Amino acid sequence: MHQSDPTGLHRVQDDARVLPQAARRLDTRPELWPDEVRIRVERLNLDAASFRQLEQEYHGDGGAVRDAVLAIVADRGKMQNPVTGSGGMLIGTVEEVGPESPLGLEVGQRVATLVSLTLTPLVITDGLAGWDGRSEQVPCAGHAILFGRSIAAALPDDLPTGLSLAVMDVCGAPALTARVVEQYVARGRAPRVAVIGGGGKSGSLALAAARAAGGARLIGVVPTDREAAALEASGLADQVVVTDARDPIALRDAVTGAGGPADVTVVCVDVPGCEGGAVLATADGGTVVFFSMATSFSAAALGAEGVAADVTMLVGNGYVPGHAALALDLLRTNPGVRTLFEERLA
Amino acid sequence: MHQSDPTGLHRVQDDARVLPQAARRLDTRPELWPDEVRIRVERLNLDAASFRQLEQEYHGDGGAVRDAVLAIVADRGKMQNPVTGSGGMLIGTVEEVGPESPLGLEVGQRVATLVSLTLTPLVITDGLAGWDGRSEQVPCAGHAILFGRSIAAALPDDLPTGLSLAVMDVCGAPALTARVVEQYVARGRAPRVAVIGGGGKSGSLALAAARAAGGARLIGVVPTDREAAALEASGLADQVVVTDARDPIALRDAVTGAGGPADVTVVCVDVPGCEGGAVLATADGGTVVFFSMATSFSAAALGAEGVAADVTMLVGNGYVPGHAALALDLLRTNPGVRTLFEERLA
Repeated sequence: MHQSDPTGLHRVQDDARVLPQAARRLDTRPELWPDEVRIRVERLNLDAASFRQLEQEYHGDGGAVRDAVLAIVADRGKMQNPVTGSGGMLIGTVEEVGPESPLGLEVGQRVATLVSLTLTPLVITDGLAGWDGRSEQVPCAGHAILFGRSIAAALPDDLPTGLSLAVMDVCGAPALTARVVEQYVARGRAPRVAVIGGGGKSGSLALAAARAAGGARLIGVVPTDREAAALEASGLADQVVVTDARDPIALRDAVTGAGGPADVTVVCVDVPGCEGGAVLATADGGTVVFFSMATSFSAAALGAEGVAADVTMLVGNGYVPGHAALALDLLRTNPGVRTLFEERLA
Repeated sequence: MHQSDPTGLHRVQDDARVLPQAARRLDTRPELWPDEVRIRVERLNLDAASFRQLEQEYHGDGGAVRDAVLAIVADRGKMQNPVTGSGGMLIGTVEEVGPESPLGLEVGQRVATLVSLTLTPLVITDGLAGWDGRSEQVPCAGHAILFGRSIAAALPDDLPTGLSLAVMDVCGAPALTARVVEQYVARGRAPRVAVIGGGGKSGSLALAAARAAGGARLIGVVPTDREAAALEASGLADQVVVTDARDPIALRDAVTGAGGPADVTVVCVDVPGCEGGAVLATADGGTVVFFSMATSFSAAALGAEGVAADVTMLVGNGYVPGHAALALDLLRTNPGVRTLFEERLA
């Protein structure tokens, strides 16, 4: 293909015309089309659901996980977990900017890409030698390509790189949570908000965003006493409950017992099977926002229908304008969020 | 389990505590818990995505499709396609009503169940001898169970049974489409609405619902000239365009060329891979409603993020209060809808 498309269509090597995210394989050549940008990669941040799946598939064998990631990227020209369908993001330095790129980036800038690795052409050149396969953050040498319609954000000077990357990776969750809570508030009703996985990265940011947007009562659901203690110490939730979110009846009863059902339920856990419980934990007329890449579309749709639940269910779109700046500000202004992130990264 | 739960939890035979929809296997015993209802089954209506998948897997061999359905129901105690995760619905006659059933049904009533077959305990006793495996509507003898929190609707007297069943099977789509369009109208802006698969059952009802709710410009997208002619003759859309919805660029260009991008895009096609095109066909600030059971959650979430699209994406909940009555009324009052349904059933 001689002409580029802002969606990156010109890099798709499949027979069918599909977008890069849906493609089997992308063209990773370092030469740029006029509206592209090439990044010298420094670190990948694997999506939590994807990393969890790989860790389980290889029984925690870091070397095998590393080999699996290398094989996927070599095969597909991008990092897309074939089971979860998800990827992650990366940071690096702008190496070359095509003359028609609309992204406003400059050579030498350190940036985080805010589009998924599942659609980002990627070449790894160091065999991931600096990674032990035991954490989502992957030191990496190589190059990646951004398209005309991609998004990248400059890394802030006042925060450690790993912290910024971890925040930006999940920055869609607080932005969309804030928008949904604001819609309830605008209709004259401060909503009760339950965040399933409230102690995690996207979950703690979602709680902070819900508070800032006017949520009335914030319920954090976590899987272990240890996470409960950490979330309680953070002060982000009004009440913290421990339960297995895959058990729909337990989740319903836990949220109801903590002052629910919720008007807004935000699902931030990276395990499959939480759709039914999230629906049952939500009041009639309420909203469920699914951020977990482990969400099953049919389980959500049929699960709600199956219990005659009149709830609005949102697919958690990772893009909301201003999402990175909002998430970084929540981290800067909420010591509870920052502590949870730093503990996770330690 | 000695006590019943309105969700049907007491019929789940899995080791883990999951809702009936997520269960591997359900208890199909005909004896009722106090809040249950038993239906003498007359006909199943397989979900379109499920039937399409089976038809393709067995290359249109009706006998093999029939055997596959029988094997699934015998194995799982419910009809749930293992690939698509979806089921369908059924009609039959109320045979026994438990003393504590809240559904208001009476013995002898002919009803359609409005909860999915994926969570309905089902026993087939006639080997589906009356079905050739070549259509979604399956004559069937056997029994099925409804729970405390199920939904069933009496079959109307003024419409043929097959027609009512076909309408009720997809009645969530027009109800949710109407609600979304009304929300735009309430904010002072009659939305442009694109229905992908506008010539199908859920699609034609969604178009009729969008018109009734105040949609400004209705665009119907269909895959073939034949469907286009039928949809044009129905008068349900302001403009009909022919394109392959799996080609994201073609879909974007078709909708844009027909007066789009759309403020509300409704996805009603039963093939995978339409997520990216639906997002690209939708204006910034718009809404995509996914009704197809072939929708991939991660493809939708990452597809929107990957092109920096600020769109709200809804999981098409099959339950909206009053959905069956609304859909039947749309059929009664729109000769175009009725003709399209009758042609499909012929």
